[in-house]
Amino acid sequence: MAMMKAAIFVEPNRIVLDDKPIPEVGPLDALLRITTTTICGTDVHILKGEYPVARGLTIGHEPVGVIEKLGSAVTGYREGQRVIAGAITPSGWSNACLCGQHSQDGAGTEHGFKAIGGWKFGNTIDGCQAEYVLVPDAMVNLAPVPDGLTDEQVLMCPDIMSTGFSGAENGKVRIGDTVAVFAQGPIGLCATAGARLSGASMIIGVDMLPGRLEMARKLGADHVVDASQGDVVEQVMQLTGGRGVDVAIEALGTQKTFEAALRVLRPGGTLSSLGVYSSDLTIPLDAFAAGLGDHRIVTGLCPGGKERMRRLMSVIASGRVDLGAMVTHRYKLDDIEAAYDLFSHQRDGVLKVAITP
Amino acid sequence: MAMMKAAIFVEPNRIVLDDKPIPEVGPLDALLRITTTTICGTDVHILKGEYPVARGLTIGHEPVGVIEKLGSAVTGYREGQRVIAGAITPSGWSNACLCGQHSQDGAGTEHGFKAIGGWKFGNTIDGCQAEYVLVPDAMVNLAPVPDGLTDEQVLMCPDIMSTGFSGAENGKVRIGDTVAVFAQGPIGLCATAGARLSGASMIIGVDMLPGRLEMARKLGADHVVDASQGDVVEQVMQLTGGRGVDVAIEALGTQKTFEAALRVLRPGGTLSSLGVYSSDLTIPLDAFAAGLGDHRIVTGLCPGGKERMRRLMSVIASGRVDLGAMVTHRYKLDDIEAAYDLFSHQRDGVLKVAITP
Amino acid sequence: MAMMKAAIFVEPNRIVLDDKPIPEVGPLDALLRITTTTICGTDVHILKGEYPVARGLTIGHEPVGVIEKLGSAVTGYREGQRVIAGAITPSGWSNACLCGQHSQDGAGTEHGFKAIGGWKFGNTIDGCQAEYVLVPDAMVNLAPVPDGLTDEQVLMCPDIMSTGFSGAENGKVRIGDTVAVFAQGPIGLCATAGARLSGASMIIGVDMLPGRLEMARKLGADHVVDASQGDVVEQVMQLTGGRGVDVAIEALGTQKTFEAALRVLRPGGTLSSLGVYSSDLTIPLDAFAAGLGDHRIVTGLCPGGKERMRRLMSVIASGRVDLGAMVTHRYKLDDIEAAYDLFSHQRDGVLKVAITP
Amino acid sequence: MAMMKAAIFVEPNRIVLDDKPIPEVGPLDALLRITTTTICGTDVHILKGEYPVARGLTIGHEPVGVIEKLGSAVTGYREGQRVIAGAITPSGWSNACLCGQHSQDGAGTEHGFKAIGGWKFGNTIDGCQAEYVLVPDAMVNLAPVPDGLTDEQVLMCPDIMSTGFSGAENGKVRIGDTVAVFAQGPIGLCATAGARLSGASMIIGVDMLPGRLEMARKLGADHVVDASQGDVVEQVMQLTGGRGVDVAIEALGTQKTFEAALRVLRPGGTLSSLGVYSSDLTIPLDAFAAGLGDHRIVTGLCPGGKERMRRLMSVIASGRVDLGAMVTHRYKLDDIEAAYDLFSHQRDGVLKVAITP
Repeated sequence: MAMMKAAIFVEPNRIVLDDKPIPEVGPLDALLRITTTTICGTDVHILKGEYPVARGLTIGHEPVGVIEKLGSAVTGYREGQRVIAGAITPSGWSNACLCGQHSQDGAGTEHGFKAIGGWKFGNTIDGCQAEYVLVPDAMVNLAPVPDGLTDEQVLMCPDIMSTGFSGAENGKVRIGDTVAVFAQGPIGLCATAGARLSGASMIIGVDMLPGRLEMARKLGADHVVDASQGDVVEQVMQLTGGRGVDVAIEALGTQKTFEAALRVLRPGGTLSSLGVYSSDLTIPLDAFAAGLGDHRIVTGLCPGGKERMRRLMSVIASGRVDLGAMVTHRYKLDDIEAAYDLFSHQRDGVLKVAITP
Repeated sequence: MAMMKAAIFVEPNRIVLDDKPIPEVGPLDALLRITTTTICGTDVHILKGEYPVARGLTIGHEPVGVIEKLGSAVTGYREGQRVIAGAITPSGWSNACLCGQHSQDGAGTEHGFKAIGGWKFGNTIDGCQAEYVLVPDAMVNLAPVPDGLTDEQVLMCPDIMSTGFSGAENGKVRIGDTVAVFAQGPIGLCATAGARLSGASMIIGVDMLPGRLEMARKLGADHVVDASQGDVVEQVMQLTGGRGVDVAIEALGTQKTFEAALRVLRPGGTLSSLGVYSSDLTIPLDAFAAGLGDHRIVTGLCPGGKERMRRLMSVIASGRVDLGAMVTHRYKLDDIEAAYDLFSHQRDGVLKVAITP
Repeated sequence: MAMMKAAIFVEPNRIVLDDKPIPEVGPLDALLRITTTTICGTDVHILKGEYPVARGLTIGHEPVGVIEKLGSAVTGYREGQRVIAGAITPSGWSNACLCGQHSQDGAGTEHGFKAIGGWKFGNTIDGCQAEYVLVPDAMVNLAPVPDGLTDEQVLMCPDIMSTGFSGAENGKVRIGDTVAVFAQGPIGLCATAGARLSGASMIIGVDMLPGRLEMARKLGADHVVDASQGDVVEQVMQLTGGRGVDVAIEALGTQKTFEAALRVLRPGGTLSSLGVYSSDLTIPLDAFAAGLGDHRIVTGLCPGGKERMRRLMSVIASGRVDLGAMVTHRYKLDDIEAAYDLFSHQRDGVLKVAITP
Repeated sequence: MAMMKAAIFVEPNRIVLDDKPIPEVGPLDALLRITTTTICGTDVHILKGEYPVARGLTIGHEPVGVIEKLGSAVTGYREGQRVIAGAITPSGWSNACLCGQHSQDGAGTEHGFKAIGGWKFGNTIDGCQAEYVLVPDAMVNLAPVPDGLTDEQVLMCPDIMSTGFSGAENGKVRIGDTVAVFAQGPIGLCATAGARLSGASMIIGVDMLPGRLEMARKLGADHVVDASQGDVVEQVMQLTGGRGVDVAIEALGTQKTFEAALRVLRPGGTLSSLGVYSSDLTIPLDAFAAGLGDHRIVTGLCPGGKERMRRLMSVIASGRVDLGAMVTHRYKLDDIEAAYDLFSHQRDGVLKVAITP
């Protein structure tokens, strides 16, 4: 049995690189040889034991690679082709998919709408921090990389670009909108870029780290607010002349940012939430106008599937935005434990780490 | 100076009928002679001092009447015409109105988006539990009553029909949806009727009062759940075969109903909130799928304006729904204090009270 | 090799019942034993040679049946289960499907958006006017029939109910709308029912046959206009008090009905087109307000897939509408040639014909 | 009686500068002293007698100016304030306005939805190619110019920027879309800029004049197609790899461009039409997929009102786009006849002409 290296969750606070068999390829699957992958904030939650996964699972959900082997029923691809797959790998055939909610892909039951069912890599099946990964429902999920794009250029498509952009999309940001983005980590930075691409005419980036605020400006923020300096809500309201924002994007997953996002909304505005929360949230009565403010709160899980990946790569190819600049560090797969150490402690101004087997 | 009778807020727990001058008519106003009006749950909040209004204000925001006098700049109407006006009376010219959010009509500033600015009657200006009421921005707000409709038939249009229906509309209920409506008071009953009119194929009405559950069935509920009998969430999930609902409408304004509405949502479902809350709300982490469930929470204030009223009266005229059945009691304006007593204590199975000067 | 009876297109004006092998079942397929099917207006176009299909093809795209055999990779179903499949059988994995346009399912290429690619039964693959039919992408397309519903009750779901309802859905008919439906054949009648379910408060059905106008009233029309009696546009404008309609649904596929639909639109109204046209269309300059009327013209091909079928059957199960009444005649498969003769000549007030093997 | 200079339509092919009384200010009006205005392609249609207006009418609908006098009922502004008003001046109170269609503002009847009723300046009331213009419904229409923006920077907001951008907005252009814009005159160029601002990742500009194609590239086109060189449809299909475009914007008003726009659409795509047509249109059967392609054809008249103007000016202020570059020539009002001569013959590469009294 052929073996490969893979980053495996052993127990809370221990992800180690170990040997694992290269997976068997079922009729609808494809086996990818990973050429570049990365570590996500969610992986750190897994590492710390805050998000539970099975012991022994291979971690990682952001694959760039080459088709090594196609399942017997897969058509439309060829071995050797460079592809990516989304972090979320919908089946295409669930009721959730058929009503357009591919991220909420069901569990196979007729009416199955199990939440976040579409997130499989490094969650319910082996992920891609490894030499090889098995992609389920390959015809739904494999997206060929356009010629001329490097691995690092498309590395953000599977998750953070798809998620971040969906913050602007779900919020229905449109030409002339005022948008505030709370937290400028990798997801928030992509939300900032997505708001810019959607035509917002004033974008306010909020964070506490100078390096992230600087990157926010590069990716589209007109103004930045340093959350360590005074009241954030007050600063945003001042920047908008007291009017509030049309869309507030939450990209951290805390009560503080959620609440601030609500407080800066104009009546009729939309709070687009991207964060993964880890405790109950409170909606303050006044911020919510007692339920009478025509407010909307929308949440979203990273959109996946090959059509989404095609679109995002077309944005990269057009040169509209350069997310490659977010790769601040590079590691070999053999050194992934060091990469986790750096990334989980957010040392050295790290934004994203490229991992190459 | 000509005088009239009006129901006036004196202090918490005291609304009294007293004499007041008949208002002067400004160039854009119209003076209505009230023929029928009613009491709203919000008026009870005012009575109890839970919602603050100025002492001396005339209460009431649901007018059916006859045009007594038109402002000098008002065209397109004639004195003697039977009309209604919405509870919300937008100006038509604010930035909020111009971006389609008439309920959030501003305070007159260029960028004014003051929440619930559109609610004026019995809130910021004198209301219509009186012999006469002054309607601001008359050309925006006066809607002629089609021939053949009685006062009681259109009495629900200004507020509870407009609000209740908006619960289904904001939730984007569509053909084949499963909908649960939490609480079957006047607003919830109208939400039930609105869900039915929007094509939902399974509607579940929730309340604790047998009379209201019975009325829910009449107005469109396929199933009713008695909230006093066992766990509401469990019952709704069972009725939906474990799938959850596409849209949950909250029509009471409590943590309990809000939370239940969230818990019965399928992934990707919408919580459409109509209630007026009186304390902070909690979003439980699990009910919210940690922010990853593609859920939407939408709120709305009663839509107003003459076009909205025209539409709602066309629904009544078509015979699609009979909301007149919700008028359970009738009082003369002279006896409005007794009407408040009955309505605020929800005695005698009261749903809505018709008040005639 | 096991054989079956099937209605086969031989040449223009000849569809005959003949023997054909029962199809082999591939890994993703399911073999259905047909229990009831029907003939569609499109089949008549095929019969007459107006719509080209391959000689030897089995005709028919509206299957009700029982699962005879499941492909090796199909899960979530069991043999013997009663199911329907839509007239349109999307793959689930094409780019078209992944951006929500399942009817326009591609040809298997990466960016394949070949129009009407999703219509396969009796068009590009063998159809269901036969003893057996092979359903491709079974997990996407098989929808279990709820207990208690008869074959005839769900017989309209695969095509005419899905198509007709989409006329109202694509037109975004909403509570209080005025809607005119041009032609009350099976599709138009379902559009009328769909407009009714969507909350329209005035529905005007147009046709020339008294029997169809009568059925239009039963399915939801408030008014009917006999197109053989005077100018249709004038009559509709009169019924709407000169205002025009919010949504006009075209359900025949002729210049005359298309143009009338455009002429009765209010500014900002929507023409929702369902008809299959057979020649170029003309948009009259005045009817189109020279392009300045904020009009929308939307077209749609019958939505398919198991989730769509589930929703439509839930509407039937709820008793909201009874489309079974549209079955006016019944034939054995052995007599299908006689059924074609009756149906294609629209004799004897025929609306839909139930065919049972 | 105080007099002013104004460009007046005398008869077909004669617009002359003449003296006219400065208008009286009604209670809801405002009198603007024009500081800059321009000539629109529509004005040329009027000049040529192709679009009928009353003899003696002042032409022009793109005002930049200073408030000279406010009506007695107008609040929220001060005399001397720099403002613009849209080409379309909705009333705010018509049923059309109240259902969000401000461009289709009615004629004052209760249900008045007279098409293009919102276009008044230089159409049904005196326009702004004059020293002064009377703005009706001033509180709905006057939008203060942000400090720091010049007249020429905001000169495109009242019409061509609002119209052109609406081409992208009505077409619902979104991140990653492929868009083709047919004709790169002033409106088409703004549509190109609007598509760019909306996140399209491939924009194809079509025209026959090299200067306009060059400007198209500056404003956001990734590719340009010279319509004088070979088949346009073929070239667009080739640039999209045979896939077709998601949105095609028609910005000329001819059968040729309309038809090409339809032919390059992918199944499910949208044709967003901006052109003012002058003859009937033909929809070719094949281009329309016989009505089965899930295509949408949407039309729109220039959005107006102060909130629209505020948004557009916020886009200018943000520096996202520089439309000032479209001003190729400058004239004094005294020389407006020469300006018409140049503009109507499209001499000297003219795009837009700034006129200053």
